[in-house]
Amino acid sequence: MRIYEDPYLLQQQALAWRQAGEEIGLVPTMGALHAGHESLVTRARRENARVVVSIFVNPLQFGPDEDFARYPRPFDQDAGRLTALQVDALFHPSVDQLFPRSFKSAVDPGPLGDRLEGQARPGHFRGVLTAVLKLFELAQPKRAYFGQKDIQQLLLVRQLGRDFALPVHVVACPTVREPDGLALSSRNVYLTAEQRQHAPVIFAALRAAEAAFRTGERDAERLEQLARDRMAAAPGLAVEYVACFDEIGLQRPARAAAGNILATAVKLGSTRLIDNVVLGAGSD
Amino acid sequence: MRIYEDPYLLQQQALAWRQAGEEIGLVPTMGALHAGHESLVTRARRENARVVVSIFVNPLQFGPDEDFARYPRPFDQDAGRLTALQVDALFHPSVDQLFPRSFKSAVDPGPLGDRLEGQARPGHFRGVLTAVLKLFELAQPKRAYFGQKDIQQLLLVRQLGRDFALPVHVVACPTVREPDGLALSSRNVYLTAEQRQHAPVIFAALRAAEAAFRTGERDAERLEQLARDRMAAAPGLAVEYVACFDEIGLQRPARAAAGNILATAVKLGSTRLIDNVVLGAGSD
Repeated sequence: MRIYEDPYLLQQQALAWRQAGEEIGLVPTMGALHAGHESLVTRARRENARVVVSIFVNPLQFGPDEDFARYPRPFDQDAGRLTALQVDALFHPSVDQLFPRSFKSAVDPGPLGDRLEGQARPGHFRGVLTAVLKLFELAQPKRAYFGQKDIQQLLLVRQLGRDFALPVHVVACPTVREPDGLALSSRNVYLTAEQRQHAPVIFAALRAAEAAFRTGERDAERLEQLARDRMAAAPGLAVEYVACFDEIGLQRPARAAAGNILATAVKLGSTRLIDNVVLGAGSD
Repeated sequence: MRIYEDPYLLQQQALAWRQAGEEIGLVPTMGALHAGHESLVTRARRENARVVVSIFVNPLQFGPDEDFARYPRPFDQDAGRLTALQVDALFHPSVDQLFPRSFKSAVDPGPLGDRLEGQARPGHFRGVLTAVLKLFELAQPKRAYFGQKDIQQLLLVRQLGRDFALPVHVVACPTVREPDGLALSSRNVYLTAEQRQHAPVIFAALRAAEAAFRTGERDAERLEQLARDRMAAAPGLAVEYVACFDEIGLQRPARAAAGNILATAVKLGSTRLIDNVVLGAGSD
């Protein structure tokens, strides 16, 4: 595995691979890799001649009061994992290399970027898409791998690809969970032992609502309320939103249908966690 | 020459050319082609294995009170010219094909998009760059050709390419002029005979200021004033701005230097015309 810090050198390598007819799979990450990331890399490895993983804690997608500074950065450990997974190139630019002071442009995700996560985190998806577009241009992927856990990010990256006809297939990969159901997240390390003990209620609540959907409940608001009620009992947990929405317009459906998303964001102490399930997909 | 209306089909062809190692030159236009466009196409033809010209009157870059509806669209005549110039592909999508109702994203040019032309035409460069990025993704050019006449557009497309590391070389081509100096523009057809008679004063004024620069004047404001004064005498001509600025930050320099731009926008009756010269480049 070769490590690239210079964006230009990565792009030269990617263009050479592409010119040679070697398809490239890209896994964009912020590092602090866990089994969820590993599942993306494993799939990319299976489907592409070349695999590029980026590790970049993207300042553009953090709000001023968020955890940019303390976000975990265990680079050597991450690099070791990626070597073991037979990644071809690890792209690890500095902030100045990817977004120098002269950087002025941005990708505006439009109104869907202001809903849900975007409402809680103004400018978040603008920052995400601006970085994603640049990573796509640098790594020239045929396929890019994103986790289903960050569902709105996945859907907005899909929108970006569709709107601009980016020649990249956006591949969604299932959320990887702890045995007790908690979705893997680099932010789980922030949880105290007690918070960690209560955290599985998030997925349990979504799963309960999804079970209600499968046994006939089609009222989206009632599905949301069901998940909210289930989480209300957990001490120290504050629900930010529970939202049922369709995959394209991110709007609450008149009648919930298979394929709709039920997503939530909660705070456990000062740690913000998100999770979601797809209605009708089962969740066991 | 093959005409493509379907963006997907153009992209498939472009990707196939690229895969075969054939470099693509793109000339984005709004049609109503004149000798200025022809000079871009001729250069693209010389430098690339494949040439794609797009004709698309981009609604995103027109303000609500501007000339989108009446902008000239002599398609058959344009197609004839491009056939004669041995263009490989003419891309001529409808508005719905390039920007369907589901289209939500945009490229935000940042603060430089609000200056000069952007101040007079709010949202103009956002619309330009949104279309340009999509055309780049569809046509997969190695080189893209833009006229120096639309200088701020050229500089913002360059900024877009730099910011996102687009693997496209943005080639600037000199402004083509009538024998009396008027810059060729598809909007010149809007001029009455009398307006047309006064229009050469625009370039004459810029050229006079540029001559003053070459003989030692380095005060940017005085260079601007010189051009403004020269145009003041022309009946029916209203100067919107004359601005001296550097190529990167679009800021007025403390001391004018070779390579700085002197640009103007004027109205002749209801027709808005722009022009510019590069200081130190000579202008004869």
